Amino acid sequence: MKALVLEKVNELVIKDVAEPIAIGANDVKIRIQAVGICGSDVHYLTHGKIGHFVVEKPMTLGHEASGIVTAVGANVKHLREGDRVCMEPGIPQPQSRETMAGFYNLDPDVQFWATPPYDGCCSDYVVHPAAFTFKIPEHMTFAEAAMVEPLAIGMQAATKAQIKAGDIGLVYGAGTIGVMCALSALASGCAEVIVVDVVNEKLKTVSSYDGITTVNSLEQNVADIVGKITGGQGVNVIFECCGIEPVITHICDHVAPNGTVVLVGMPVEPVKFDIVAAQVKEVTFKTIFRYANMYPKTINLISSGKINVRPLISKTYKFEDSLEAYRRAVEANPSDVKIIIEME
Amino acid sequence: MKALVLEKVNELVIKDVAEPIAIGANDVKIRIQAVGICGSDVHYLTHGKIGHFVVEKPMTLGHEASGIVTAVGANVKHLREGDRVCMEPGIPQPQSRETMAGFYNLDPDVQFWATPPYDGCCSDYVVHPAAFTFKIPEHMTFAEAAMVEPLAIGMQAATKAQIKAGDIGLVYGAGTIGVMCALSALASGCAEVIVVDVVNEKLKTVSSYDGITTVNSLEQNVADIVGKITGGQGVNVIFECCGIEPVITHICDHVAPNGTVVLVGMPVEPVKFDIVAAQVKEVTFKTIFRYANMYPKTINLISSGKINVRPLISKTYKFEDSLEAYRRAVEANPSDVKIIIEME
Amino acid sequence: MKALVLEKVNELVIKDVAEPIAIGANDVKIRIQAVGICGSDVHYLTHGKIGHFVVEKPMTLGHEASGIVTAVGANVKHLREGDRVCMEPGIPQPQSRETMAGFYNLDPDVQFWATPPYDGCCSDYVVHPAAFTFKIPEHMTFAEAAMVEPLAIGMQAATKAQIKAGDIGLVYGAGTIGVMCALSALASGCAEVIVVDVVNEKLKTVSSYDGITTVNSLEQNVADIVGKITGGQGVNVIFECCGIEPVITHICDHVAPNGTVVLVGMPVEPVKFDIVAAQVKEVTFKTIFRYANMYPKTINLISSGKINVRPLISKTYKFEDSLEAYRRAVEANPSDVKIIIEME
Amino acid sequence: MKALVLEKVNELVIKDVAEPIAIGANDVKIRIQAVGICGSDVHYLTHGKIGHFVVEKPMTLGHEASGIVTAVGANVKHLREGDRVCMEPGIPQPQSRETMAGFYNLDPDVQFWATPPYDGCCSDYVVHPAAFTFKIPEHMTFAEAAMVEPLAIGMQAATKAQIKAGDIGLVYGAGTIGVMCALSALASGCAEVIVVDVVNEKLKTVSSYDGITTVNSLEQNVADIVGKITGGQGVNVIFECCGIEPVITHICDHVAPNGTVVLVGMPVEPVKFDIVAAQVKEVTFKTIFRYANMYPKTINLISSGKINVRPLISKTYKFEDSLEAYRRAVEANPSDVKIIIEME
Repeated sequence: MKALVLEKVNELVIKDVAEPIAIGANDVKIRIQAVGICGSDVHYLTHGKIGHFVVEKPMTLGHEASGIVTAVGANVKHLREGDRVCMEPGIPQPQSRETMAGFYNLDPDVQFWATPPYDGCCSDYVVHPAAFTFKIPEHMTFAEAAMVEPLAIGMQAATKAQIKAGDIGLVYGAGTIGVMCALSALASGCAEVIVVDVVNEKLKTVSSYDGITTVNSLEQNVADIVGKITGGQGVNVIFECCGIEPVITHICDHVAPNGTVVLVGMPVEPVKFDIVAAQVKEVTFKTIFRYANMYPKTINLISSGKINVRPLISKTYKFEDSLEAYRRAVEANPSDVKIIIEME
Repeated sequence: MKALVLEKVNELVIKDVAEPIAIGANDVKIRIQAVGICGSDVHYLTHGKIGHFVVEKPMTLGHEASGIVTAVGANVKHLREGDRVCMEPGIPQPQSRETMAGFYNLDPDVQFWATPPYDGCCSDYVVHPAAFTFKIPEHMTFAEAAMVEPLAIGMQAATKAQIKAGDIGLVYGAGTIGVMCALSALASGCAEVIVVDVVNEKLKTVSSYDGITTVNSLEQNVADIVGKITGGQGVNVIFECCGIEPVITHICDHVAPNGTVVLVGMPVEPVKFDIVAAQVKEVTFKTIFRYANMYPKTINLISSGKINVRPLISKTYKFEDSLEAYRRAVEANPSDVKIIIEME
Repeated sequence: MKALVLEKVNELVIKDVAEPIAIGANDVKIRIQAVGICGSDVHYLTHGKIGHFVVEKPMTLGHEASGIVTAVGANVKHLREGDRVCMEPGIPQPQSRETMAGFYNLDPDVQFWATPPYDGCCSDYVVHPAAFTFKIPEHMTFAEAAMVEPLAIGMQAATKAQIKAGDIGLVYGAGTIGVMCALSALASGCAEVIVVDVVNEKLKTVSSYDGITTVNSLEQNVADIVGKITGGQGVNVIFECCGIEPVITHICDHVAPNGTVVLVGMPVEPVKFDIVAAQVKEVTFKTIFRYANMYPKTINLISSGKINVRPLISKTYKFEDSLEAYRRAVEANPSDVKIIIEME
Repeated sequence: MKALVLEKVNELVIKDVAEPIAIGANDVKIRIQAVGICGSDVHYLTHGKIGHFVVEKPMTLGHEASGIVTAVGANVKHLREGDRVCMEPGIPQPQSRETMAGFYNLDPDVQFWATPPYDGCCSDYVVHPAAFTFKIPEHMTFAEAAMVEPLAIGMQAATKAQIKAGDIGLVYGAGTIGVMCALSALASGCAEVIVVDVVNEKLKTVSSYDGITTVNSLEQNVADIVGKITGGQGVNVIFECCGIEPVITHICDHVAPNGTVVLVGMPVEPVKFDIVAAQVKEVTFKTIFRYANMYPKTINLISSGKINVRPLISKTYKFEDSLEAYRRAVEANPSDVKIIIEME
């Protein structure tokens, strides 16, 4: 079968690889239909590593995927051949302490697509555990279903934030993950969400959603806008999706007493943090690492129309044009949210 | 000034009463603009009592209200003359243990409008604590603002339910409170809400909302519909708004493992309840009594358009036609959700 | 090897059975050292069934056990031969939705020792998943370690109750599970726990613990004692461990506003329940089904001395005297809390 | 009456001041019996200010106090003359948004004893709101009752941490607040608490409590001890009570996946903080500011014997020897936990 393989840094090819044959009793085989390009895919392409994950042998890229079930293992009950599905890319050890406790994403032995040494899913077929393969409804496109993965990150952040209906939210950073947090926060109960960035092109797409107010902090005063929307109280929840020190140091400036901040952005080095500013408001900080148990809920929200991901699909490419798709992704056009490769 | 006064059972009059003059330092005076009719108002009219609350002297009716501030006390900072507002009708003792702990609605000494021996607000003016008076935006009508009170009950129920984004909800009972719970559940994160009743006219209004599926349980099989929408898992949260024994006894039939049931309906007598059916799913039960700290969040949601209460305002009457308004309310037309009296 | 086998109702024998040989890669083999007798063991002996679980073929009894590891599977890292351990008796499907979400006890396909059709552990050896086998410290006896299982039920109840340090608790029922709830509530933060029963012999053992006040409700007025201990506020948390209708109907009488009731007792039929009494205090109800993720924490508390289970071990018997042990268990001596069989 | 008055920096005197005469309807008058010396009292004495709170006129010191009620206001129901009591020193505005929501400690207009411009309570009498005055049992000494205030800070921290029974805790810093956090964590459910400091004299007092393991991090390896006690998992909850940057930067080193860190120490400047280290474990951070609704629960725990504060009372002085008491407090003897002035 064909696969999109990162041979080594800056060397991406479409080539023939062995098709997976054996299907375990709890697995399904899936013909891939759509695969999103994630920042991590691009980073492996351009840098060959992320932190201590180093690409040391050719690796198929891609972990945001949907497809059609073509075969099911003997024990699988909830799926059958022909089902349209999307797949959760990280598989934990079944009986690890973290898995049994409900936060399997924190299992240190998770095997995650396109994270060395594990191949990703941008290929004709994959074999995957049925428990991490989720049926999607007829009216959901494969491209939308590929968006479940990045949206699940926003959902993890918003769920951890324990938003209450009618809260006001604020997101720093209008990149893909910032947008996912903003939409998840609205779906989780926020009456309004303020999205702050310094690049107008990034703010444009998200500004089209009901309930979103965008702020270019180089041009407008964030404090004034927060004060006006919250009656001077500050927002109830903040999602930090920049990972930039000056934002993080002053992250409590606009949060209400007893509010919550979710730290989503990942600064490479330790950053200055004002603890006393947090204490006088008894702010709670949550952190997230990928997601757990978010796929069914995320599918429900796209399916019911409460979250519309279609405006976020900036461009789709055919599989044969994958290299062009990655060239565009590497360019990092500020108005692009998500680029998707469609398999046939 | 004029007020709508319940003289005694079945004797409702518009008459002159003394206008409140003194304004405490922490109070505001409000010219009333709109007042909703609640089931409790109707019940006092037709029965003269609710439980141990007995109408023993003439009492002004009404507790769902909005208006315009006409004077402010010396200490009041967040309101000024001319502000458009709605008012929370129950005032707790300021330093009771319940108030200090954040659940002031449970203070046994709450003074609540139109609950004997306290007068309600269906009159030209009221004087009210500024802390329980909330500014509304220009684009919100006074009738919408009067809807904040009943919606706050649904908000209390949905907030207690700790809904997570993407959950599926189910409401038993499509009366006013059932509808408020359904809309609050959607606003709190439910991807979809199933509303069950036995009267099609009651289901009609709520069925017009996105995300709502209505079921007439005399005509359709609830289990089938729940099974289809939830992939056989059962719903994550149920709001019981009937108060009817057969519903309550089997309330866990359609709830998912680890799900939540909010008991909103108030059965007069103890009812049969299947504890073992709850235990095998570790169901959590929440109960509510009015609401606390819900007005600002409820206003936010109506203001931002996430909850649209306009379809629920079945009919408005002028103050001078209040008796006719109450006649219609007593009729309990199944397609009526809320009747509102407008003051000028 | 020898095992204690229930041949059919009222027919219990010690006999030779096949010793388990094969050890899966994630399993360990354990030489059993101590097994407690649970009410369910006794009920299978005397009735041959519990609900829809029917003994249809010979079944080894026992599910509260400790022992010594004698062999480990290839993948097992945290245990080795000679380790002293206790074992969690219910094994869920590894990738069920309930397991992945952290409440594996609710997996409908759990395989639980001595619950038909699965054999229990009162035998010389068992093979068991390493993930459900927990090391105990040198200073903990095997009999104490066998107490982890029933105590884990109290821990599940107390953990679900979300007790805050300094709360006052109340337990209805001084049977084994009531005692486990009382000790778990104290360990979870309760400053004091009131235990109510009608049999003085049952109250005697638990009354010896610091922080416990016992009340015989036939001889003393519960309201007076609760009022005195709580300054008239009512208790913060109640554990209902009787399963008796009159207790459940009035379960909110002594609970404080915003309090919690955990329903642990299992009444066979639906029981009358006063919903309005719960609503005026906004009481939360939790229900439990066995336990999940409680073994390590329960071991920690026994190990550190915060929970002392030794006074609860009423009598130990040698394995060869198992039938005598069961005869005593069937007698249900009110002063017995736990009877334990020691294997060699 | 006599009072201990800070005239200006480094000038402390016992002098006559006006006795409070007027008692509001919701107030009580109290004859003070014991007053603890807090680090903030000492800091005002030696520096004349804390942050933006500046001593600009003579101020009575002291906010950790107990006494005897000598008169009660007209509306007061739960107290009467002769009652032995302790008092919460911070009084919020009764109807502020923070107060109504249950976190009155975050009300920006709190009036707090011995925080400029408000006088403290180290005087013969005070008049205080009855709602912030709590009855203590006969068997509790006035010195113990004065300890309720500092212990309430530990209780706020431990309550925010949402400790579950059987958790393992770790406290950085064995100063007064570190000790209060350690004892509160044990009372809240921790099976064991590890206390880390670099001064052996500070560790000595706390090491005498059951369930506490002390570590001098200059002499011992914290990782080894945590690994041994937690089976390599890391602790479930950490209380940071040093406020020192190197500790805070690496605060996640020893915490388990999904664990919680409570930031109690107050570093003057922003400090370097490793966000990614937190994210890979999805650590939650809580912050605290004084306490709310902690007095009754704290009194319950001292009263029932679950927390024993007597070993923490290092030395008591008569009121007439207050200056000597403060000289000792200024010395900051590492083995002193709390110095108390007894009024007579």
